Amino acid sequence: MAKVEYPAEVLALLRELKRLPGVGARSAERIAVYLLQNPKAAPVDLAEALRDCETGVTGCPTCGFFTGSEGCAVCAGQGRDVGLLCVVEQPTDVLPIERSGVFGGLYHCLGGKLSPLDDVRPEDLRIGELLKRVRAQPDIEVILAMSSDVEGEATANYLDELLGTTGCRMTRLAQGLPAGGGLEFADELTLSRAFEGRR
Amino acid sequence: MAKVEYPAEVLALLRELKRLPGVGARSAERIAVYLLQNPKAAPVDLAEALRDCETGVTGCPTCGFFTGSEGCAVCAGQGRDVGLLCVVEQPTDVLPIERSGVFGGLYHCLGGKLSPLDDVRPEDLRIGELLKRVRAQPDIEVILAMSSDVEGEATANYLDELLGTTGCRMTRLAQGLPAGGGLEFADELTLSRAFEGRR
Repeated sequence: MAKVEYPAEVLALLRELKRLPGVGARSAERIAVYLLQNPKAAPVDLAEALRDCETGVTGCPTCGFFTGSEGCAVCAGQGRDVGLLCVVEQPTDVLPIERSGVFGGLYHCLGGKLSPLDDVRPEDLRIGELLKRVRAQPDIEVILAMSSDVEGEATANYLDELLGTTGCRMTRLAQGLPAGGGLEFADELTLSRAFEGRR
Repeated sequence: MAKVEYPAEVLALLRELKRLPGVGARSAERIAVYLLQNPKAAPVDLAEALRDCETGVTGCPTCGFFTGSEGCAVCAGQGRDVGLLCVVEQPTDVLPIERSGVFGGLYHCLGGKLSPLDDVRPEDLRIGELLKRVRAQPDIEVILAMSSDVEGEATANYLDELLGTTGCRMTRLAQGLPAGGGLEFADELTLSRAFEGRR
């Protein structure tokens, strides 16, 4: 009896879906069934969106945020405080900060964080561009807004040392209890950071 | 200060990704960052695969399994037992059964299961086609291989009643302890089914 397999087109789609982060073999099958069977799925719309992004979206050459045909929404934005520069890991870190409404300066997206295990080294990130920006405007305040995991800390430490030579003012986001979180949910490291940073 | 948003192309991609089953706002952002930033991501390959599936893959008119340019791998397969018909919910249920090597007959994919809450009614499934197949070959054995959840049971009961009029032989997959599963992991319903079905 001949072995039954999916048609070549479906196998190719499964292969592409499985390469996406967080999508395993089962999710890929579930997504493929949805795309192939649901009359409302419109896989061509997704294909179209992918192509439009590939051709129309680049990183802003200055800050690294996603930029379409209308230019960078941050760098070309009206009324922003150009004396503040917030360094984040990914372009997707910008909108949560914007939505909080607490920051009105400029951004610098590194494109990741230092991670020897994933083979991400300083030259893979937009660190050279950051140094250039800070050197051109040494009175700027740089806020290091990396995530508070090991790689984020290592990246912040690296930048701290590197940018220390420029004489700019540097701060880091406070670490402590998350808003609305009780002490019973806080791990030891969070608690010790909350104590150290008490005010 | 103007509100910062993603470029229109990125917003469109996020909207399309969020429509996929199991992909929420955060996974969509994660996938978009991967597709837009990772040099190995090749979003155009995914777009290509989606288009090829849209144009090249259909449901087999007989059994409903995914069918590409080479015809249905099951219905056109050599040496299959045409006296056995296994009714499953989705085309993706076929390969797990095939891999187990326990079944060598034909399939009928319903395209889902009855679910009043999701507005899936009998006429939304390939039930008419199933009835036609069974009527054309009344000596066939029909194996109802729905999942063992509420909707799967309801679908099996509905088919049981409907196909009962054709005089075909009907069986259902056994329910009981999963292989390798200890009693301590079994829920009450599974245990009661395992006792009822003891042999």
